[in-house]
Amino acid sequence: MKLASLKDGRDGRLVVVSEDLAYYADAGHIVASLQAALDDWDRYEPALRLLATDLQHEAIPLERFHERDAAAPLPRAYQWADGSAYVNHVALVRQARGAEMPDSFWHDPLMYQGGSDAFLGPRDDIPLTDESWGCDLEAEVVVVTGDVQQGVSREEALKCIRLVGLTNDVSLRNLIPGELAKGFGFFQSKPASSFSPVFVTPEALGDRWRDGKLHGALEVELNGQPFGKADAGEDMTFDFGTLIAHAAKTRKLGAGTIIGSGTVSNRDSDGGPGRPVADGGLGYSCIAEVRMVETILRGQAATPFLKAGDRVCITMHDDRHHPIFGTIDQTVVAA
Amino acid sequence: MKLASLKDGRDGRLVVVSEDLAYYADAGHIVASLQAALDDWDRYEPALRLLATDLQHEAIPLERFHERDAAAPLPRAYQWADGSAYVNHVALVRQARGAEMPDSFWHDPLMYQGGSDAFLGPRDDIPLTDESWGCDLEAEVVVVTGDVQQGVSREEALKCIRLVGLTNDVSLRNLIPGELAKGFGFFQSKPASSFSPVFVTPEALGDRWRDGKLHGALEVELNGQPFGKADAGEDMTFDFGTLIAHAAKTRKLGAGTIIGSGTVSNRDSDGGPGRPVADGGLGYSCIAEVRMVETILRGQAATPFLKAGDRVCITMHDDRHHPIFGTIDQTVVAA
Repeated sequence: MKLASLKDGRDGRLVVVSEDLAYYADAGHIVASLQAALDDWDRYEPALRLLATDLQHEAIPLERFHERDAAAPLPRAYQWADGSAYVNHVALVRQARGAEMPDSFWHDPLMYQGGSDAFLGPRDDIPLTDESWGCDLEAEVVVVTGDVQQGVSREEALKCIRLVGLTNDVSLRNLIPGELAKGFGFFQSKPASSFSPVFVTPEALGDRWRDGKLHGALEVELNGQPFGKADAGEDMTFDFGTLIAHAAKTRKLGAGTIIGSGTVSNRDSDGGPGRPVADGGLGYSCIAEVRMVETILRGQAATPFLKAGDRVCITMHDDRHHPIFGTIDQTVVAA
Repeated sequence: MKLASLKDGRDGRLVVVSEDLAYYADAGHIVASLQAALDDWDRYEPALRLLATDLQHEAIPLERFHERDAAAPLPRAYQWADGSAYVNHVALVRQARGAEMPDSFWHDPLMYQGGSDAFLGPRDDIPLTDESWGCDLEAEVVVVTGDVQQGVSREEALKCIRLVGLTNDVSLRNLIPGELAKGFGFFQSKPASSFSPVFVTPEALGDRWRDGKLHGALEVELNGQPFGKADAGEDMTFDFGTLIAHAAKTRKLGAGTIIGSGTVSNRDSDGGPGRPVADGGLGYSCIAEVRMVETILRGQAATPFLKAGDRVCITMHDDRHHPIFGTIDQTVVAA
């Protein structure tokens, strides 16, 4: 089952979307919003599934689904907690600045609490006030949970996953060092993230969803050129069950919590820092990583951060080359 | 006007509470929840005020208000961002561990993104799984905002404040050093916070609300003994307008955002690190601070962190010795 929220007020209008993303059926007669559905999933999920089946059989009136009309599936959420599960990415950051990475990073997940009060839709512009802030994309996988009890195990946590999707976790790289030096983590350096047009239930992902990970190439384009195609199922040191259990160690998590994977990143096959797609590599899921690789290889970064007019696309295709979650397609605009 | 949410489902049931906190009137015929009221404040606020006036004149049926029946006024929120505006507190932390405090801390606010998916009510137990985590109270002032535009000035930010209240920002002190060393800020070290039984509109606070600060002694009791009575209007380096503007530097803030002051802390009149209430001082708004003072004066901390059975009360009285916001009164229980 694929769910989206059409732009309408603060919480959008919940719709069920056909598997090929061509059509939708309004779910308003079942439940008003995706958050409300997640709040009482056992009650609403069966009815939403029946609607999805009717939609697939064209047994009900269909409406054409336009990704541009979609808000983030959860236009606002009560929790957005983003991990950093591709430790390869963290190791590269450290290597670029000549810092050692503690061994604990391989068994204790990094996670930060993000702002969740107002997300961007998949086609919304990225507003940027000051290009010197160093605006970056970060292509990631996310899951949405139901209620999660405190102290949950990895295995129990996996059962709490209701939906899977993609995000562009926009970051202001040049504000990060100052904020992290203050010791309280990210705040100003993390403006609103955007999310894929639809979120998908795990079972509808088939073999793509296994071991608590989403498998497949996360395709990133920058200004129409291939930028990254790392496999989200590879080199993910901490699966989503482990990330959720980490988040729930000292407190329960409310239904509708969004947990992020952190920037997807694959090791190069030769063990090196990775090559651009144009050079036959898997490329990158954020600009910071290519800048780190450039710094390691050539002493300084060459690829600039995002500026007004730059365009970012993030998607993942199924085996028939259909986008599974639709496409995040955003342009940076001066704000 | 004073507003509360009686325990009922995930978002509570909005009620208007009389000025003396003795009675309430159900606001369900106006708007279902406090979040919904904040989402469209210009529409709902006049009707809520009329209800408050009727309540004050006993022109409508009254119900007895019991603080024990109250959830947090926002039982869950889309954003909880906590500052650290009493720089005196930060300076003491640093002094205790022999670390210098950067001068920038006096003009650039510290702020962290907190979890907001499930808050504790004012009388809810504080669940504690492991006493070695070092459970602490933190008595603070909070404001709730309407929509705040990105890049707002301090003066504009002050106009966005809808409500004022108190919080107990529960912290797990012994988990903090490890988390901050990882560089991503607090996560596991900040379990659910609790909030005062009612939140109050600024104009109803009279002279207590001025210069973007709440003025008056924030009274903290630990196991029935006076523990702190620092004045929330004193030594607050960053007022709430400045804190909101800081939060909104790179993104807008959604209606219902809760901004915290950080632990209230006053300088001692003699410039020293502060004395316990029993010794004629203003005491402390968290256990960590008395432990720091003990460390500075005697080489080691003596006051233990919270354990099962410990009881914490936080309140602020008006000039007639009535609690303005009601009383946070929580007992730690093994979880």
